[in-house]
Amino acid sequence: MSSDTTSAGMTGLDWPKLFATRAERMKASEIRELLKLLDQPDVISFAGGIPDPALFPAEAFGAALTSALSGDSKGAALQYSVSEGYKPLRDWLVTRMASLGVECTADNIMITSGSQQALDYLGKLFLSKGDTALVGWPTYLGALQAFNAYEPSYDRLTPLGNRSAADYRAAAKANGGEVKFAYASADFANPTGETLAGSARKNILDLAEDLDIAVIEDAAYQSLRYDGDEVPPMQALDIERNGSIENTRTIYCGSFSKTLAPGLRVGWVCAAKPVISKLVLMKQAADLHSATLNQMAIHKVASEGFDAQVAKIKATYQARRDAMLASLARHMPEDVSWTRPDGGMFIWVTLPEGADGAALLAESIKTERVAFVPGRAFFADGSGANTLRLSFSCASEAMIEEGIKRLGRVVRGG
Amino acid sequence: MSSDTTSAGMTGLDWPKLFATRAERMKASEIRELLKLLDQPDVISFAGGIPDPALFPAEAFGAALTSALSGDSKGAALQYSVSEGYKPLRDWLVTRMASLGVECTADNIMITSGSQQALDYLGKLFLSKGDTALVGWPTYLGALQAFNAYEPSYDRLTPLGNRSAADYRAAAKANGGEVKFAYASADFANPTGETLAGSARKNILDLAEDLDIAVIEDAAYQSLRYDGDEVPPMQALDIERNGSIENTRTIYCGSFSKTLAPGLRVGWVCAAKPVISKLVLMKQAADLHSATLNQMAIHKVASEGFDAQVAKIKATYQARRDAMLASLARHMPEDVSWTRPDGGMFIWVTLPEGADGAALLAESIKTERVAFVPGRAFFADGSGANTLRLSFSCASEAMIEEGIKRLGRVVRGG
Repeated sequence: MSSDTTSAGMTGLDWPKLFATRAERMKASEIRELLKLLDQPDVISFAGGIPDPALFPAEAFGAALTSALSGDSKGAALQYSVSEGYKPLRDWLVTRMASLGVECTADNIMITSGSQQALDYLGKLFLSKGDTALVGWPTYLGALQAFNAYEPSYDRLTPLGNRSAADYRAAAKANGGEVKFAYASADFANPTGETLAGSARKNILDLAEDLDIAVIEDAAYQSLRYDGDEVPPMQALDIERNGSIENTRTIYCGSFSKTLAPGLRVGWVCAAKPVISKLVLMKQAADLHSATLNQMAIHKVASEGFDAQVAKIKATYQARRDAMLASLARHMPEDVSWTRPDGGMFIWVTLPEGADGAALLAESIKTERVAFVPGRAFFADGSGANTLRLSFSCASEAMIEEGIKRLGRVVRGG
Repeated sequence: MSSDTTSAGMTGLDWPKLFATRAERMKASEIRELLKLLDQPDVISFAGGIPDPALFPAEAFGAALTSALSGDSKGAALQYSVSEGYKPLRDWLVTRMASLGVECTADNIMITSGSQQALDYLGKLFLSKGDTALVGWPTYLGALQAFNAYEPSYDRLTPLGNRSAADYRAAAKANGGEVKFAYASADFANPTGETLAGSARKNILDLAEDLDIAVIEDAAYQSLRYDGDEVPPMQALDIERNGSIENTRTIYCGSFSKTLAPGLRVGWVCAAKPVISKLVLMKQAADLHSATLNQMAIHKVASEGFDAQVAKIKATYQARRDAMLASLARHMPEDVSWTRPDGGMFIWVTLPEGADGAALLAESIKTERVAFVPGRAFFADGSGANTLRLSFSCASEAMIEEGIKRLGRVVRGG
């Protein structure tokens, strides 16, 4: 950018001087920039954490959109609508949440533009500059990016129950604020693929009660379980403890991005009404509402075939996960370990201490044309250099075997 | 909400204690709550500032969506996409901006979820707590709501050039921050319907240069001119002064909500690249991107028939504006005045000093079943009690005559 300005022989404004202090924390991820360059046909990519577009229910969406745009609904489908979201979709979600053990009403649900927007709004709702957010080491990079705009400090959330509330409080005070929430993905988390056991969920709720803070439960991958029994969401456990969603501290963030399609940008938040009513005011001020037509289309496709669509994608992703685990066992040296996720899209690889994932990526691209995401970006403290995230969602089983074989060569050589 | 909690015999968390300080400034608008209750068939409403859904190009959108969801594009239409927005749409906007006197490239344009989102992001980009935003008295209520989340002070922007930069600076310093931007809608502004003359636009740019601040130009209604000559956008004047968009301080916020359809949530920001690149990072962190499919549909409908669609809606709205102006002349007492807008959707009515728009609305609903928006909400300083906003966009000419006749009776009686 600066080179463009220079080549024009002119100087622009000193924008950084005008920007708010929070703008300093909005930085381009080097990895994301690097991966952009890698969208080339000869690269086998395990980098992007995105669904396989071949699995989208494109025909069902076509029919749903055509239906919304004909007859009596066509004016409403293209018009402004309420900030809390399309009522029939919120009603459908009430039933869906009940099936997960969360009894609620439509007033406990707000539609968002993907669960990423829920994370942004929750950062905005809770974090004054200097407050502390508890996050995993590692955690979802997009959560850190969303929260960063509100200039928090981070402290490490462990599901072990081995640090006292007093200890967390003192650390937050030293950083100039208070602990406001614990953020965790309970099922098949991005980036590790790991699921929190029931006992770990209880430890997080215990800590949140001791600290009297909120719990943000990121459930983006919740529907994608390939084996093992479902573990109730933290929000369901919270309701069990406290009798009603109105008495809970858990804020559940769901998404249709991993089940139906991400390009429509539809997700939801489920929480006690005082939280939802503030979020609705915030959304009204921030983007009025999520696209009306998209909410209508998601509602129609979900109500006519959510379970069948989920069953279809699970069969494909499960086979890919199995293929990747088998390939890793075949091709990785003994000093490398990895997670064995029960669902989701990711396997998390730990290299020996001292290894550097970023350097490995550079080498891997140069010599073997295989891409992945080095793990350090997922750590709020900048640790984790010897970790990698592999996604199996978008590669065929044959590509997985070939890619992991190549990666094994890079790791052995590195 | 509190009654639900009480009736359940339980008490929830003390959420306000956990919320960030900014949450205190997110309040339900009493007027908006009142108007929700008024969505009844026997009420003639001049309240909502929304387009007439009968004018939406529903068929063209149906065809565009069907096309996007068939053939090679269907995977991409439902998939994640880049935060800056769909390239063909940004290219179309480059041509559109050039027709308004703004020479730019696609790198100067980011797609937003409506221009409301642009206002939120610009508040987020510029305003640290206590900084000052310059806004009109009155100004767009949604801009105040968007900016409020970043806890600014407001000072009065007048297009008269009659207050010195030093004066503004001192006032901002007294409020604990700096002046960061001037916000103005140059054409057919919400709520007044007024257009800034070329000289007023120059005064605003002069002041912004003296203060070395940004100018946010809200152009939501720019395409809806019914008579008079187009006045170049402030951004075009800024380019004239400074040679290139890269040297300008004006940030142009456009929208398809008033021309094609609001329910798809597609708008754009046009600005120097250092601003756009920060906004792209912000959008990536806040909601990843605006819905892919919607951007594709807007691109197809705009590139195939933007001008024809605008011509169609202008003919209808112009006739309604003319009808409302004629009815006001017939039915309002002599001590009431109003604006005569060259475009847009609004007429601004000033009642005699001491009149109260909110009380008048209550009376008007009770006795005559006519709705409008009392003007006070549009004033950052809480003044303007004797003003009203009337929208003519959604009422037939017959309804306008009947509604204004009734309103005249209320005003005479009040």
